[in-house]
Amino acid sequence: MYSEKGKYSVEVCFSPLSWPLFEKDNTVVIITDIFRATTSICAAFQNKVKSIIPVADIEESIAYKEKGYIVSGERDGKKLECAEFGNSPFNFMEPGLQNKTVVMNTTNGTQAIKMVQKGDNLVCMGAFSNRDAICNWATAQKRNIIIFCAGWKNRFSLEDSLFAGSAVDYIIKNGNGDFHTMCDSAIASVDMWEEAKSNPRQYIEKAAHRHRLRKMGLDDILDYSMQLNINQCVPVLKGIEIVDIA
Amino acid sequence: MYSEKGKYSVEVCFSPLSWPLFEKDNTVVIITDIFRATTSICAAFQNKVKSIIPVADIEESIAYKEKGYIVSGERDGKKLECAEFGNSPFNFMEPGLQNKTVVMNTTNGTQAIKMVQKGDNLVCMGAFSNRDAICNWATAQKRNIIIFCAGWKNRFSLEDSLFAGSAVDYIIKNGNGDFHTMCDSAIASVDMWEEAKSNPRQYIEKAAHRHRLRKMGLDDILDYSMQLNINQCVPVLKGIEIVDIA
Repeated sequence: MYSEKGKYSVEVCFSPLSWPLFEKDNTVVIITDIFRATTSICAAFQNKVKSIIPVADIEESIAYKEKGYIVSGERDGKKLECAEFGNSPFNFMEPGLQNKTVVMNTTNGTQAIKMVQKGDNLVCMGAFSNRDAICNWATAQKRNIIIFCAGWKNRFSLEDSLFAGSAVDYIIKNGNGDFHTMCDSAIASVDMWEEAKSNPRQYIEKAAHRHRLRKMGLDDILDYSMQLNINQCVPVLKGIEIVDIA
Repeated sequence: MYSEKGKYSVEVCFSPLSWPLFEKDNTVVIITDIFRATTSICAAFQNKVKSIIPVADIEESIAYKEKGYIVSGERDGKKLECAEFGNSPFNFMEPGLQNKTVVMNTTNGTQAIKMVQKGDNLVCMGAFSNRDAICNWATAQKRNIIIFCAGWKNRFSLEDSLFAGSAVDYIIKNGNGDFHTMCDSAIASVDMWEEAKSNPRQYIEKAAHRHRLRKMGLDDILDYSMQLNINQCVPVLKGIEIVDIA
């Protein structure tokens, strides 16, 4: 798996700080923010939400709200004042959101989406919940792939890196021999996945963010967020919107 | 090990890019650059070199050379024109260097040393070759510890992170109950060490840097650099010099 064979590369960027070292043209970028942006985006599309507009600034969220949009958002796990609800995946499962567009603003995830929103890259959203679906779509694009971990305030995050490892592992094993990696962060994340894969939910108990969630009373989303392949969503950025192209 | 018990923390900074997120006062910083700065610094002290002056700029190396200093140095694995020799640990084992001061300039390691060279932090150099010695000294200082991986051009590096994992593991198990970690990068690096520790030399075969070394014809240092506890050096930064205080 660690050979230089396979005409396309798969790499892992552990934090937004490192993005300038990885940024290239003509790649597929899979953004992941397990707790909680990308898990919630997949939950939304499973619930037939029409589209999601990711925004990074609170002022932008307020402006959308004034135009009549449904606005969700949080900072450091707390609902934004301008938002109708926070970023828990459960919030996006409400039947009233079906066929609606939601404006989303999160601490790390939407910031990451804004960073890569340029050039000719194909940008999509990955989570444990849609891992196989998003990886199958990514490999079918026949381009180099970068998995971009949103992290926590520019820090390395265990849950995002663990997802990255599971995705690299899947892509290399199921990518028709087209993919290789020579990226140390990809190799390390696959090793984490090797250790975690028999019970990812248990593995993540030791993550710093898991303690952060518990302190904020938000650990109800853990069981949901660590489940593999519970939907088939392929959330892809098209212009300013994320839509499900599955 | 992942509890909040233990009054001092141990954290791992995966790359110089992330250093601003970790930088604090009153800590012990263990810098590691396995291929090759810190491994070579330990080899030098085992050979009774008197001191090492780390420099980051080539102009500075040239200025020291003009003052009559012995200058070593490389960029991207190639010897600097102004240097008498490169940064292989074997170069530092020459008997002629005993009781001498050597000025050292490396691609990643000395750059990292310069970054942390301020404030009241205690700065020391760790490698597989002096792991127990440096960790025992670090824990005895009764301060928070940060392991700073020099990486490769600001990227995550498998060998430096693997050393970090082995050091965190040792510090928590042998730190008299004084140390804990709540740092995701520390947790991930310990997991890497768990997978690698039965044969670190074999594990590192998959690292990108290992391929880089092979291409440059420098892979003769691999066996040497991956050996655990072959010396008892405690290289500590004192002013502008690194000295062995063991």
